[in-house]
Amino acid sequence: MAAESQAADSVGIVEPQSLHFPEPIRLESGHTLPEFNLVFETYGTLNADASNAVLICHALSGHHHAAGYHSREDRKPGWWDACIGPGKPIDTNKFFVVCPNNLGGCHGSTGPASENPDTGRPYGPDFPVITVRDWVKSQARLADRLGIDQWAAVIGGSLGGMQALDWAIHYPERIRHAVVIAATPRLTAQNIAFNEVARRAITSDPEFHEGRYLENNAIPQRGLMLARMVGHITYLSDVSMGEKFGRELRDHAYHFGFDVEFQVESYLQYQGVRFSESFDANTYLLMTRALDYFDPAREFGNDLTRAMAEARCRFLVLSFSSDWRFAPEHSQKLVNAMVDARRDVSYAEIDSDWGHDAFLVPNERYESLFRAYMNRVAKEHGDAG
Amino acid sequence: MAAESQAADSVGIVEPQSLHFPEPIRLESGHTLPEFNLVFETYGTLNADASNAVLICHALSGHHHAAGYHSREDRKPGWWDACIGPGKPIDTNKFFVVCPNNLGGCHGSTGPASENPDTGRPYGPDFPVITVRDWVKSQARLADRLGIDQWAAVIGGSLGGMQALDWAIHYPERIRHAVVIAATPRLTAQNIAFNEVARRAITSDPEFHEGRYLENNAIPQRGLMLARMVGHITYLSDVSMGEKFGRELRDHAYHFGFDVEFQVESYLQYQGVRFSESFDANTYLLMTRALDYFDPAREFGNDLTRAMAEARCRFLVLSFSSDWRFAPEHSQKLVNAMVDARRDVSYAEIDSDWGHDAFLVPNERYESLFRAYMNRVAKEHGDAG
Repeated sequence: MAAESQAADSVGIVEPQSLHFPEPIRLESGHTLPEFNLVFETYGTLNADASNAVLICHALSGHHHAAGYHSREDRKPGWWDACIGPGKPIDTNKFFVVCPNNLGGCHGSTGPASENPDTGRPYGPDFPVITVRDWVKSQARLADRLGIDQWAAVIGGSLGGMQALDWAIHYPERIRHAVVIAATPRLTAQNIAFNEVARRAITSDPEFHEGRYLENNAIPQRGLMLARMVGHITYLSDVSMGEKFGRELRDHAYHFGFDVEFQVESYLQYQGVRFSESFDANTYLLMTRALDYFDPAREFGNDLTRAMAEARCRFLVLSFSSDWRFAPEHSQKLVNAMVDARRDVSYAEIDSDWGHDAFLVPNERYESLFRAYMNRVAKEHGDAG
Repeated sequence: MAAESQAADSVGIVEPQSLHFPEPIRLESGHTLPEFNLVFETYGTLNADASNAVLICHALSGHHHAAGYHSREDRKPGWWDACIGPGKPIDTNKFFVVCPNNLGGCHGSTGPASENPDTGRPYGPDFPVITVRDWVKSQARLADRLGIDQWAAVIGGSLGGMQALDWAIHYPERIRHAVVIAATPRLTAQNIAFNEVARRAITSDPEFHEGRYLENNAIPQRGLMLARMVGHITYLSDVSMGEKFGRELRDHAYHFGFDVEFQVESYLQYQGVRFSESFDANTYLLMTRALDYFDPAREFGNDLTRAMAEARCRFLVLSFSSDWRFAPEHSQKLVNAMVDARRDVSYAEIDSDWGHDAFLVPNERYESLFRAYMNRVAKEHGDAG
């Protein structure tokens, strides 16, 4: 039996790479990181004039492993394997795809769990707050090092879509297309509230040790688990949870107690535990705060149209009907500002029951729109491989 | 300046009463409580033939103090003072209003913080799981003691509405009207998931001590706070949170940190702390579990119409447009089953931005529909006072 990694539409076995950036980077907060590493993966081949490069920006709990497998035994591909590969919407026969782990992350790029060169100990809570702008700035340095002056496209879902937007506004000459999926030009009070619950769950866990859990050989597992449970509910929809679990009982009968009774409880606990074993708590705080702070209109007098007028690229904006985290109205506001700023934008609301997570779930219309748009992007650089 | 308690439409100063029920009560779980107390308040006067009594059922974090003030210095009235009082929708010039604290509660009725007669210590986690049916059964005993054979109406919002429904199904001869507001015939997977997060926040707090926190001179405050924060988000709507807080900053500028930055964070923390100082953790577990288990169709082959066919009373069902916890579709399902069962039902979806909490918030159409319905109920017993 052939491994999944040998499927014709898979990028196959991939290997993460890492680059060290020895120059200090000044962050939006005013703090400076003296140096940093970015870990990333690439799929496909950069063409001679470096015109076919595509940047994939990950969301809250994502990382650099977006497609393919790390070994033949690896049964689970990268998180966006559904969209990246030969013949897939982001076609690796046509594009050179770059996906970094964000600064502040916990999968190899410099983050709170990394050693602070000033102290020789983990940064922990001393790692500065990172914003979407900071990520884009660090990604621009990565592009420099890879010899990419201009991305054919910057693409992302959710928090990743915010990075694509920020690229468009702050590096207008370095991006030809931005694909902004299930994103928002800024969080609502409800969005911020859910993030705050997640953060509070982590920071109020006695094992958090004010962020110095690593030095205390501890992990705020209960807090991370709760944070993930809350997050997970907001990524799904009432409908998709209903279809997946309904009120199904784990054991056909009521037991009148507080152990797991309904399937949905069992699922959430499983997801929570798994997450708490693999994700860094300080990174979770940073990522959710970056979401809260994102508000590109802010520096343009709270005028999103003025912000969008900075952009020179073309846009594809996609939203999903059952997404109640960043509902289609969020994308519509964004599109309205783009239109008002006379930007070139294609927009579609995709029918899906999968809530916010729909951007990761195979869906015929989604794939066909995405593929058609990316084919046009590819045409601009003559399908060069 | 006159105290609020002297306003013409206030029930004024009220005093809680308590009754001891020395007979054992067998619960739906199969467990038996050997005896119990119920604390309650009454407003208005029971008429000669006891035909003007109205039962108010409280929701998750509610209690027996639904209207009026406990003293002249008391600045905050009971939780449903907007609807209960002379000339208000539940007119105390016409009705004798009874509002108990539910069994398992933490405001005076027997609950997990009460002394277990078998051990002389607090019940704590040994207090049996209580269901909506159990509450109704205990309320029926209260009615017996008060000499009320039949309620003119049983009224409740949210979890309180579920009790009104259960009265209609299981004591058809003892209730003439049921007013079911912002309720549901059963929770969805998403509803259960939010409850499970709240419970998990409490039980994973090290100060929970497996439910024996009182004996350990501890309180799982962090867990209760998180539970309340999650709950609070689901009681409000995205719109009402947006109107109330938007992205307003506490201090006009970004500080790039994890202290309170947005007003909504400050509000949630305040609510969470206040709640954690006043509510019993084991009671919170019981109340959320009662919500999860409620499913009156279950004993009728999952056929809600058959369940509703048991009822003999008339119904008023109200839902609120922005309620995403128990959205109008929940009420519509209920109404459809009532109509299929040829029950007499009036239904309205009230336009409101206040989410699930709308049933507690003054609203012209809500009040006028509620008042008109209750006036008709009063006419049946000849406006006797």
